[in-house]
Amino acid sequence: MQQDKEESVIFMESQYTKRATVAALEDLLYHPIPVLDHGFIRVIDYMGDDSAVVQAARVSYGKGTKQVNQDKGLINYLMRHLHTTPFEMCEIKFHIKLPIFVARQWIRHRTASVNEYSARYSILSREFYLPDPDHLAVQSISNKQGRSIDKMPQAKANKILDTLKNDALNCYQHYIEMLNEDEQGNIIDETSVGLARELARMNLTINYYTEWYWKVNLHNLLHFLALRADAHAQYEIRVYAAAMLNIVKLWVPFVYEAFEEYRLYGAKLSRKGINVIKKLIKGEKVNQESSGMSKREWEELLQIIS
Amino acid sequence: MQQDKEESVIFMESQYTKRATVAALEDLLYHPIPVLDHGFIRVIDYMGDDSAVVQAARVSYGKGTKQVNQDKGLINYLMRHLHTTPFEMCEIKFHIKLPIFVARQWIRHRTASVNEYSARYSILSREFYLPDPDHLAVQSISNKQGRSIDKMPQAKANKILDTLKNDALNCYQHYIEMLNEDEQGNIIDETSVGLARELARMNLTINYYTEWYWKVNLHNLLHFLALRADAHAQYEIRVYAAAMLNIVKLWVPFVYEAFEEYRLYGAKLSRKGINVIKKLIKGEKVNQESSGMSKREWEELLQIIS
Amino acid sequence: MQQDKEESVIFMESQYTKRATVAALEDLLYHPIPVLDHGFIRVIDYMGDDSAVVQAARVSYGKGTKQVNQDKGLINYLMRHLHTTPFEMCEIKFHIKLPIFVARQWIRHRTASVNEYSARYSILSREFYLPDPDHLAVQSISNKQGRSIDKMPQAKANKILDTLKNDALNCYQHYIEMLNEDEQGNIIDETSVGLARELARMNLTINYYTEWYWKVNLHNLLHFLALRADAHAQYEIRVYAAAMLNIVKLWVPFVYEAFEEYRLYGAKLSRKGINVIKKLIKGEKVNQESSGMSKREWEELLQIIS
Amino acid sequence: MQQDKEESVIFMESQYTKRATVAALEDLLYHPIPVLDHGFIRVIDYMGDDSAVVQAARVSYGKGTKQVNQDKGLINYLMRHLHTTPFEMCEIKFHIKLPIFVARQWIRHRTASVNEYSARYSILSREFYLPDPDHLAVQSISNKQGRSIDKMPQAKANKILDTLKNDALNCYQHYIEMLNEDEQGNIIDETSVGLARELARMNLTINYYTEWYWKVNLHNLLHFLALRADAHAQYEIRVYAAAMLNIVKLWVPFVYEAFEEYRLYGAKLSRKGINVIKKLIKGEKVNQESSGMSKREWEELLQIIS
Repeated sequence: MQQDKEESVIFMESQYTKRATVAALEDLLYHPIPVLDHGFIRVIDYMGDDSAVVQAARVSYGKGTKQVNQDKGLINYLMRHLHTTPFEMCEIKFHIKLPIFVARQWIRHRTASVNEYSARYSILSREFYLPDPDHLAVQSISNKQGRSIDKMPQAKANKILDTLKNDALNCYQHYIEMLNEDEQGNIIDETSVGLARELARMNLTINYYTEWYWKVNLHNLLHFLALRADAHAQYEIRVYAAAMLNIVKLWVPFVYEAFEEYRLYGAKLSRKGINVIKKLIKGEKVNQESSGMSKREWEELLQIIS
Repeated sequence: MQQDKEESVIFMESQYTKRATVAALEDLLYHPIPVLDHGFIRVIDYMGDDSAVVQAARVSYGKGTKQVNQDKGLINYLMRHLHTTPFEMCEIKFHIKLPIFVARQWIRHRTASVNEYSARYSILSREFYLPDPDHLAVQSISNKQGRSIDKMPQAKANKILDTLKNDALNCYQHYIEMLNEDEQGNIIDETSVGLARELARMNLTINYYTEWYWKVNLHNLLHFLALRADAHAQYEIRVYAAAMLNIVKLWVPFVYEAFEEYRLYGAKLSRKGINVIKKLIKGEKVNQESSGMSKREWEELLQIIS
Repeated sequence: MQQDKEESVIFMESQYTKRATVAALEDLLYHPIPVLDHGFIRVIDYMGDDSAVVQAARVSYGKGTKQVNQDKGLINYLMRHLHTTPFEMCEIKFHIKLPIFVARQWIRHRTASVNEYSARYSILSREFYLPDPDHLAVQSISNKQGRSIDKMPQAKANKILDTLKNDALNCYQHYIEMLNEDEQGNIIDETSVGLARELARMNLTINYYTEWYWKVNLHNLLHFLALRADAHAQYEIRVYAAAMLNIVKLWVPFVYEAFEEYRLYGAKLSRKGINVIKKLIKGEKVNQESSGMSKREWEELLQIIS
Repeated sequence: MQQDKEESVIFMESQYTKRATVAALEDLLYHPIPVLDHGFIRVIDYMGDDSAVVQAARVSYGKGTKQVNQDKGLINYLMRHLHTTPFEMCEIKFHIKLPIFVARQWIRHRTASVNEYSARYSILSREFYLPDPDHLAVQSISNKQGRSIDKMPQAKANKILDTLKNDALNCYQHYIEMLNEDEQGNIIDETSVGLARELARMNLTINYYTEWYWKVNLHNLLHFLALRADAHAQYEIRVYAAAMLNIVKLWVPFVYEAFEEYRLYGAKLSRKGINVIKKLIKGEKVNQESSGMSKREWEELLQIIS
């Protein structure tokens, strides 16, 4: 994997282009941004900028958009009214290194192009994810749907980290032995044979790192980020989303601002939720029972308005 | 087109199945529901029901969903939290007859399967859409984005309808003459030749009717309906959406109810909108200027809360 | 539409970029390539080049691809073995002007991003497609599936062209009158009202020109071209495909060469077809009857091998 | 997982339906077909049959298809000429249990709907894949792209299987201890806390079994099968593809037959390959050098024609 990485790290020389170009993103091109203990995300290529969104919208809405005479206002309008197709006119390509269990969540977003490092053909590096002790959360008892905010007691945390590390190393050692090849692909015992790579890999734990190229348009990227930068997402994917939010902010600042305003920090109301708010504004009293909402819905509403 | 229609109208005989079956939808199967002056929509096939959504969610969330012990509550939860994949487990297939300009809007929804009647291979019938005089709306001056609520003066409306009708008939007459074939495909003048169908069709106006099979999963159908049953959608596509809403209600009543509650009659708030509401609930005064919102956004917010 | 066109024609100034850049395509950027009588296609933006395909493949196949030590050989290998994902790593965006009936075929390819000029919001220009007399083909009698190779007799061709032109002009004249606006959007009669644009457009024939931005990845573009540059495709879409083939050749020359070799000038054999070929190579006699193929299949096979 | 499985195994009672129904598939509904050591595949629901494909094609091609007067001939025609949209009119839903590393290959096919059992919310069962000794293939030295046909020596095979088994069991034991919950979700030590499930799972090896619902249309299913039932696919996914081929054969026998004839047992020729065949048929001599093909291509061609 080392060799391949070096190959792909080669920095391109600057050349002239007449394409839309974003200086702030050029500075970032090819530079890996560290995520988790061994992961990274780096921008390999991009297409379009804020004005590419505007350009597409103006073709669609033609003279009808002349009144929205500022690009920023138009972008806000598109975001607010779910006119999503102009956002598809921008594209970005990342090179990402991430644990397999994160990759498994990520790949569920189907509207992207992916080329993943294949352990069927190549040998995986001895790199696996170990959580920071601060992130070794206790299982939530109340809702069974994720981590509680409680952390592990120190001693128990250490024991868990030891276990994770030992099992990962032990499995890797056996992986290498079964392959009869070392990490660099050198045959270990010339008098013996190795198990097919596509089989040996099954002995690795799902915290091993994989790599891929992931290419996506801006609309689908924002959808991904709305779900994965959310507090309900697992921490280990959320940190990748956070890194990408910063990239989007540099790349398409007007779009990013609209995304924050209307999606990231916006909220959805149900019909019952709207009724509650109308009553509250009028100064009427309303509680969970009279709202007709479930306890959970009621709490979610209170979180929005208080 | 007549022959083909007859073919496809053949009612299937009832048979036994162990698949999920919805009695209310069975009654509707194959029956065309009239839409506009010559259009229709009819259900040809379907897969799944409310419990197929629940079943898929329970596999995904496993024991974590046991607390949501009622199917209806689970469906509400999925709809509220944008857990959309279980809704993909239901599928429906429609046969639809619609004007070409409506088909052009419709087809922009890419996540569906379509087989359209092809005027490249077959002769289109002499059927075109003429609006009801009540729907001959005046162009809106204020926003240039659609109809105003004003109707045409009666005399002008009649003149317009005459023009639309005459031009459509005139174009069709020439279509037939160029083809040298009548509507049933009989050659008109044996001593002459006809223009290729794929070319002759270019003389038809875009209010001519076309037909297609349209197959879509429930998630994508709801997304389509959220956009096309909306007041901002053009009337001529909205009536098809309205017909489909009734079908969804019969097919998956729990899903439909959740869709009404959380999407159709729900609303989105921006970050600024949330702040306005917080202030209003506290009894503070706030107006457009102090809200930081544009005039249009402010009006949209007032529509939600008043 | 004029104004909008001018806006979007603005040539970008050259800037530095570290992204993959293709000099031959830079020269072509923004320049409209004429297609049909009023249409065009122009490249607005692109992402990636031949080496982006190679880079993605090398990540996927890792050291396993080291033996294919030349980029060109690797691209051939990918094309031959349907390893399509690396071709998704390149993206291109076109601005295209095309007749509505061509747009209707085109849009059936769902895996692309589109922003179309909307006659709901804007006024269409008085530009419609009239075939060159040489392309006024007669309907094929034998297979009913398209044009025959016979052309219209001169006198009949002239009459047809007159009809197409008159009907298009007549419909446009009424479109403008119903709108009560001229082509530039100026109100014609201040004392009257205009019909909503979304309605008036229904009076236009489907040979009127529309415009859109069309963005697609290289894999999906090649799939589009394989179908639409084919002899079975309608002439009016084939000329757009032909223009795009030239663009692809400039953009990704290795990919283009592989595409020609393995798809455009390649062929598919059925199981029966393979058997026929095996016999022919052995010098055995075989005819349609003994081949087990239908007459049509047999003819298709003969076209490949003779 | 036991409980959930029981829930979803409940056999539906037979009901009347007017939908297209396939008796041979009804018999198979809900019954798990064993695959690998602990996996299975079972049909949960389906929509359409051979005649649904024909029906859609006849709408598309209208009277133009009348000459192809038999359904079977029409289906062959569609398959041969890549008219793929009618095949999208059929849909099937499977419940599948499969090792994680197989699921990782499978999910790369994006055009399907998936709901997977989530180890974020639920506890995985102690079930992992161990290859049959007969499938413990040696890594191919020649092409680095998969297994060679050589099997492991018996003693080495036993040692490898012991390692795989021990590591999987060891990792699972630690998984349970970190969770502080047993396989059924009962807390083990009431005085302690458990690690969040979304974290603990990272200690499992990728041969552990997962489950999902997988819903796909017939066109995309055939594409999946063409790639995954192929000899180049990894054995462990190929056995699932083989099981699905049998299901397709029962469900849509005409489509299946066409699929075999034109895809599964068909072949592709390059431009150079066509030239070679033409020469061979004429009795001319041609070898790899004179063909202009690479050594590998030449061998692939020989495999087709000999």
